[in-house]
Amino acid sequence: MEVYLDNSATTKPSQAAVQAINRALTEIYGNPSSLHRQGLLAEKLLKKSRSQITNALGVAEDEFVFTSGGTEANNLAILGSIKQLPKHSNYLITTEIEHPSTLNIFKELEREGYPVTYLRVTQKGIVDLNHLQQCLLKKPALISIMMVNNEIGTVQPIAEISKMIASLPYKPIFHSDAVQAFGKLKIDLSKTNVDLLSISAHKFHGPKGIGGLYIRKGTKLGPLFYGGSQEFKLRPGTENLPAIAGMAAAAEEFSSNNLTQKIKYIEHLRTRLLIGITKKIENVKIISPAVPEAVPNILNVAFLGIPGEVLLHGLEEDGIYISTRSACSSNKKEQSHVLTALGLRTQEIESAVRFSLSIYNTETEIDYTIDRLHHHVTNLRQIVSGRGYY
Amino acid sequence: MEVYLDNSATTKPSQAAVQAINRALTEIYGNPSSLHRQGLLAEKLLKKSRSQITNALGVAEDEFVFTSGGTEANNLAILGSIKQLPKHSNYLITTEIEHPSTLNIFKELEREGYPVTYLRVTQKGIVDLNHLQQCLLKKPALISIMMVNNEIGTVQPIAEISKMIASLPYKPIFHSDAVQAFGKLKIDLSKTNVDLLSISAHKFHGPKGIGGLYIRKGTKLGPLFYGGSQEFKLRPGTENLPAIAGMAAAAEEFSSNNLTQKIKYIEHLRTRLLIGITKKIENVKIISPAVPEAVPNILNVAFLGIPGEVLLHGLEEDGIYISTRSACSSNKKEQSHVLTALGLRTQEIESAVRFSLSIYNTETEIDYTIDRLHHHVTNLRQIVSGRGYY
Repeated sequence: MEVYLDNSATTKPSQAAVQAINRALTEIYGNPSSLHRQGLLAEKLLKKSRSQITNALGVAEDEFVFTSGGTEANNLAILGSIKQLPKHSNYLITTEIEHPSTLNIFKELEREGYPVTYLRVTQKGIVDLNHLQQCLLKKPALISIMMVNNEIGTVQPIAEISKMIASLPYKPIFHSDAVQAFGKLKIDLSKTNVDLLSISAHKFHGPKGIGGLYIRKGTKLGPLFYGGSQEFKLRPGTENLPAIAGMAAAAEEFSSNNLTQKIKYIEHLRTRLLIGITKKIENVKIISPAVPEAVPNILNVAFLGIPGEVLLHGLEEDGIYISTRSACSSNKKEQSHVLTALGLRTQEIESAVRFSLSIYNTETEIDYTIDRLHHHVTNLRQIVSGRGYY
Repeated sequence: MEVYLDNSATTKPSQAAVQAINRALTEIYGNPSSLHRQGLLAEKLLKKSRSQITNALGVAEDEFVFTSGGTEANNLAILGSIKQLPKHSNYLITTEIEHPSTLNIFKELEREGYPVTYLRVTQKGIVDLNHLQQCLLKKPALISIMMVNNEIGTVQPIAEISKMIASLPYKPIFHSDAVQAFGKLKIDLSKTNVDLLSISAHKFHGPKGIGGLYIRKGTKLGPLFYGGSQEFKLRPGTENLPAIAGMAAAAEEFSSNNLTQKIKYIEHLRTRLLIGITKKIENVKIISPAVPEAVPNILNVAFLGIPGEVLLHGLEEDGIYISTRSACSSNKKEQSHVLTALGLRTQEIESAVRFSLSIYNTETEIDYTIDRLHHHVTNLRQIVSGRGYY
């Protein structure tokens, strides 16, 4: 059996997405900027796709720009805003637990001389609002707080933070990386103060290589690079129409009235996995908070005493695919910056693994996973205890 | 009949490309950074795809970075180089006839204070080498000269320019936009001094949304934006594997021993079109130079007295798709900067259209096009002369 439980790293594109991509590859293959019929057909598909996505987000059609993915969307949001700031206004706020595609922008900005605060988080990975309150006194120009953490699934109180920002006597730019949020919780931007919101198609069964940025009307932004006047002059280059159409098809599947049902189903699988693990296996630490403080598709668990990577490869032999941490940093040797920020002990951090579910997983897959987990954890602990490790 | 003669705007992906894309969408759907088997399969496909492309270019595997397309590749080359320059070294050279994705980078750099020379071109669109020679005395830090012009197809003497650069007592960075060159002429980088070379898949029957930059070993470059450590830390973000695999399949079709034959076939079609036009239609000006001073797939012709866009829409009614100029600037009202740089008269510029061929066009299509051209040009000239325009 193959059980893919690494859906926070990337998802398998849905049938609808694959069909939409193929139609754009083989039938609507024109350049949306061309003046002839093939160009117009392409332009129409671009417009329709944009509207499918903005409908799913509940925003206007001219408030969304396609990018090559979440990383570019985060960079366009942050670097594109900073270009427009007055020189004296340069204090920036983010959190300790952002994805590398946000964190490394701020590290670069620090090198360039911008003062940056990395907000502390609680043991559950929730932003310390007292810390934020203190920092807001220093008049930040831009605040970037992710909606959902990719390693542990914690949902940030964006609505509450929005209220704090709304009550300020000045207006900082508020960006949120929603790459792990779209399709996993209802995003209602009308209840937030978010000016910029990043999403990525391959995290919700759309294709890789496409994502985008919601840009609230009136938000000042410059492009990351230069060229043609595509995407409201904010993102030059021939539009990636096959991927855009695929993203739209995938977004529609998660914007329908079925979202509540989809979320419920995933939560049911997560609960089943969680109960199975805690019932069958001793000495585990559940790192992710409970739903709704976490999204229903991510469960981070430390099987104490067993290095996460060893367990990962054990499960891999049985066709079960999980991860130890974010794919974008999985090749690095350093300890997870997210788990470190939670104040976990090194032993807990080293034995943590992430299960990330999707609507395409089944109860049978979860039960099989629990069974194989029990088998490998028991075996590995015997080996490890023989070596005096556990 | 549908006759697509706008292959310089974008091409229809080949069957091999579509198959490769679908395999990556449905089978090899993992994240190349994931540690489990699906991740390893993805990483293997990434490695294989890179090697197919670098083989086609005749360069080493670690000398090529994937980008989201030609525009990003040009920006990475130019902006990424400039980041690494010492402060005092800031004089830049490009040409008057670059694609907007190069030209607009230099316009931005000028705004930021960099001195830029836009090299003059001859009536055929070839860079004025005397002008270049003069400019080289002023020690440019970077030179960017396109390999093939997108509107008229002129091939620049990159080998000759390379010799001029090689003989200098200092070493400027040499970038070439080869977006319109790959698959249309043999690119032998060993005979050039080119440090950076941009290509784009959708111009050679690969998918949109993917391209890349050849980076000669030892060339100093910084990333355009920040995130994970993908693509040798030069281009962060989850790799667009379906598009990369599609690009590789398409590149391989143009790197095989069949390239000579493919080029010959396209040149044969171009000659047929050219002869048909000049035999059947009076008062035309052939703007593109002859092969090999132009690539075999682009033919720019002015049907004097008829606005290009009117002819375009006339042919469109018969299912023939051509363009008036570069798709990336087709929505702008200004006159083509390329045709202006050639020193053409306004009447010639306004009546110019571009035919851009591919290996998938046929003799029958060309003959049909000549017939419809004759029909529309005759009709339109009668209408226009009735209005006293012609």
